[in-house]
Amino acid sequence: MSDTSAARLLATLTERLGARHVRTDAEALEPHLVESRGLYRGHALALVEPGNTEEVAFTVAACAEARVPVTAQGGNTGLVGGGVPFGGIVLSLNRLNRLRAVDPLGASMTVEAGMVLADVQAAAAEAGMLFPLSWAAEGSARIGGGIATNAGGLAVLAYGNARDLVLGLEVVLADGRVWNGLKALRKNNAGYDLKHAFIGSEGTLGIITAATLKLFPRVLSRSVGFVGLPSVRAALALFERLRAGADRGLTAFEYIPRFGLEMVLRHGIDVRAPLEGRHAAYALVELSSPRPGADTRSELEELLGEAMEAGLVEDATIGGSAAQDAALWRLRELLPEVQKAEGGSIKHDVSLPLSRLADFLEEAEAACLAAMPSLRPCPFGHFGDGNIHFNLTQPVGMDKAAFLAEWARFNDIVHAIVARMDGSIAAEHGVGLIKRDELARTADPVGLDLMRRLKAALDPHDLLNPGKVVALSDDPPPALPV
Amino acid sequence: MSDTSAARLLATLTERLGARHVRTDAEALEPHLVESRGLYRGHALALVEPGNTEEVAFTVAACAEARVPVTAQGGNTGLVGGGVPFGGIVLSLNRLNRLRAVDPLGASMTVEAGMVLADVQAAAAEAGMLFPLSWAAEGSARIGGGIATNAGGLAVLAYGNARDLVLGLEVVLADGRVWNGLKALRKNNAGYDLKHAFIGSEGTLGIITAATLKLFPRVLSRSVGFVGLPSVRAALALFERLRAGADRGLTAFEYIPRFGLEMVLRHGIDVRAPLEGRHAAYALVELSSPRPGADTRSELEELLGEAMEAGLVEDATIGGSAAQDAALWRLRELLPEVQKAEGGSIKHDVSLPLSRLADFLEEAEAACLAAMPSLRPCPFGHFGDGNIHFNLTQPVGMDKAAFLAEWARFNDIVHAIVARMDGSIAAEHGVGLIKRDELARTADPVGLDLMRRLKAALDPHDLLNPGKVVALSDDPPPALPV
Repeated sequence: MSDTSAARLLATLTERLGARHVRTDAEALEPHLVESRGLYRGHALALVEPGNTEEVAFTVAACAEARVPVTAQGGNTGLVGGGVPFGGIVLSLNRLNRLRAVDPLGASMTVEAGMVLADVQAAAAEAGMLFPLSWAAEGSARIGGGIATNAGGLAVLAYGNARDLVLGLEVVLADGRVWNGLKALRKNNAGYDLKHAFIGSEGTLGIITAATLKLFPRVLSRSVGFVGLPSVRAALALFERLRAGADRGLTAFEYIPRFGLEMVLRHGIDVRAPLEGRHAAYALVELSSPRPGADTRSELEELLGEAMEAGLVEDATIGGSAAQDAALWRLRELLPEVQKAEGGSIKHDVSLPLSRLADFLEEAEAACLAAMPSLRPCPFGHFGDGNIHFNLTQPVGMDKAAFLAEWARFNDIVHAIVARMDGSIAAEHGVGLIKRDELARTADPVGLDLMRRLKAALDPHDLLNPGKVVALSDDPPPALPV
Repeated sequence: MSDTSAARLLATLTERLGARHVRTDAEALEPHLVESRGLYRGHALALVEPGNTEEVAFTVAACAEARVPVTAQGGNTGLVGGGVPFGGIVLSLNRLNRLRAVDPLGASMTVEAGMVLADVQAAAAEAGMLFPLSWAAEGSARIGGGIATNAGGLAVLAYGNARDLVLGLEVVLADGRVWNGLKALRKNNAGYDLKHAFIGSEGTLGIITAATLKLFPRVLSRSVGFVGLPSVRAALALFERLRAGADRGLTAFEYIPRFGLEMVLRHGIDVRAPLEGRHAAYALVELSSPRPGADTRSELEELLGEAMEAGLVEDATIGGSAAQDAALWRLRELLPEVQKAEGGSIKHDVSLPLSRLADFLEEAEAACLAAMPSLRPCPFGHFGDGNIHFNLTQPVGMDKAAFLAEWARFNDIVHAIVARMDGSIAAEHGVGLIKRDELARTADPVGLDLMRRLKAALDPHDLLNPGKVVALSDDPPPALPV
């Protein structure tokens, strides 16, 4: 676009929103141009910060008229480059951060998209209820971004992904109109269920400005165990046993490989080994219950005791207090961080049918080690959801850049196995830029065509976060890291 | 279309599918032209019964080329006229009735669209698992239809609607291509989640040929209670108490008004009064658990005992055996049937936020009685889901046809209250024909425009179940009952 028409657009926005909320200075823009891991650097005309839904609608309508792209951002904590702008404006939702309503009896709450996830959780707790969505970045991630990316995280096993926690949405469409779908209903078949088109679309089909969320009874009893296992297959057998024994009371089953725990103990601050001996694999398991009088500790002791007798568990410890539970959880939560201390990591966010998970871990590790024998695989994560962060830590002493240059090669190796086992190459982090071209290459062509039709139907001028998830043209701009 | 081109299409289909599966005789067509309650009678060129997905795709492609509409049908048990054809062919999915795979560890199964719901349940049970979707017509309804209409039913409270039980779909598109989205994953963000566009679209956006479903641990302990209550508000308070006390162990909370129970006892065969006295309202409650050793009976006794002490429950009985539980359930299940013995019923399938449910019942009953004082309201159903079948039984002695002629007037009265309380006029039965024009009149115009854009994007020639849910033209053919 010409400098004149850009200037005219910014003047229009400034007049409505005020100069404080239409920023073109490098200092204001900078944090919105880079992805949290530094994989991409974008550029933008301006950072625009509307204060309410009407201002979002006004901004998007003005951009639509001027044919200027709009990249919506929340906390900018995404891991796939989905929020990085390449031209146009960055529309920050962060000023839309009000709690609109809480309804404990109806077990729902309505929040604006820019509310920090931890604040959403706190507001639910204040109403005596639980909002279970949770992941490491919850102190800065915004609920709108979590919904736009259908985020997963640590509570999916019992409560589902972000998608499953949404009852209704308010969305600004590509032309600036507002769709009010803020229903708080458990059953609603009044026409097509439009909210699902926007959830997980990463800001490419519409901009979520508010959401009505499901709440759950708050947890009254919780117990966390850390388990040493002889093998991945034992982990799978243990999971099956706990699921049968505790059903949805099993609220976490996270997998940690021996190398992962060793890294945590080596680099983590204030951590100590949870078990005496060494084991091939570890699982962090959590039982919790909202029932008055529930005794999840005894239940967990009994279930793990039986698993030990069955030879599935070599050793286990159970946290005896909230502080001890938190210390066990920390061993899992530190994993992404401590990897950095060991150099570069080539990452995969994959999911498999649970029944293929052990096969996948064995085959993928073997294939990667065959390609680079000194590699240190560190697959960890949400085992109970079939979702593994199949990360590969660089060999000791290797140049980090040289290792990361192998990213595409290892992606090919791992994702081929995922495809053969009917898994997904984008389990909980989404597609964004980092997986866009691979998705286009590997997805079912009919499905890909459907995605493009949806995009063309809802954003015909390709103005909403263009170039992310799916590209409308056959020759999209290349998705290159910095 | 001309007779010649119709004949050419049928010849093409007959050549591929065989004459046995392309029927034009009145006897074969008849059961596919009427809706189960006799509200509509349609017409069709032929009944086509493909035997597998490829034959469905062939049929749809041939129809697309000839611009002939296709109305998909499963068991034809729908209640909104959604499966009634008005021209074109009826495509029955009933020969696609194979179980493709069961994976107990992965807790999923893949079934073809034409499997009878009860057979799907049985196949899950045979694998030691539970498929919870359940409603009265499960002995003849097909799973594909249940998914296409996002059916609700009796197990939504703990397990969700049909939508929530689907992991993946195989769909034949309007042009005859097949989208293979049969993933068995708990997390998958590899692009837009296409399955949700087809679930609940009532065959207007694509034809579901197979589905991968979620399974759950089978129930090992179940206990059913029948409760006499002083008021609707007491029912709500009891629900809140049971939800807090049993969480997702509370697998049913159904509401029955006094008049409803009286009808059941008057007209039902082999039924007896569950409680001695008379009460303003009744609830059927069920606790169930997959945990070995769970004692849901003691749990239910304790919870109901506490509620009685709190003055919420006037009287209660708990089934002591599977047969007694079934007898209590029967009192609820007979309700739709016994209404017929009392004459005509004007029906509403509405949902409300739970926190508005008592207000709604009071206001809607009062408004209807003000309009016709001798009316007999019989609102019943899935109270815990906020879903009430707000049925109005005709006055004693009134002419049935004269009463049913008031259908639109009472719809207006009831739906206006639903709208004011942010509810839905189509909770679990869908839109079909019966609510299409009302949806068009009352829905958020932006949402309606989005629905039409989806329809135009996925079925540009308006060939899939045309005229249902949304109509593409401003002047659609009228949706008139027989």
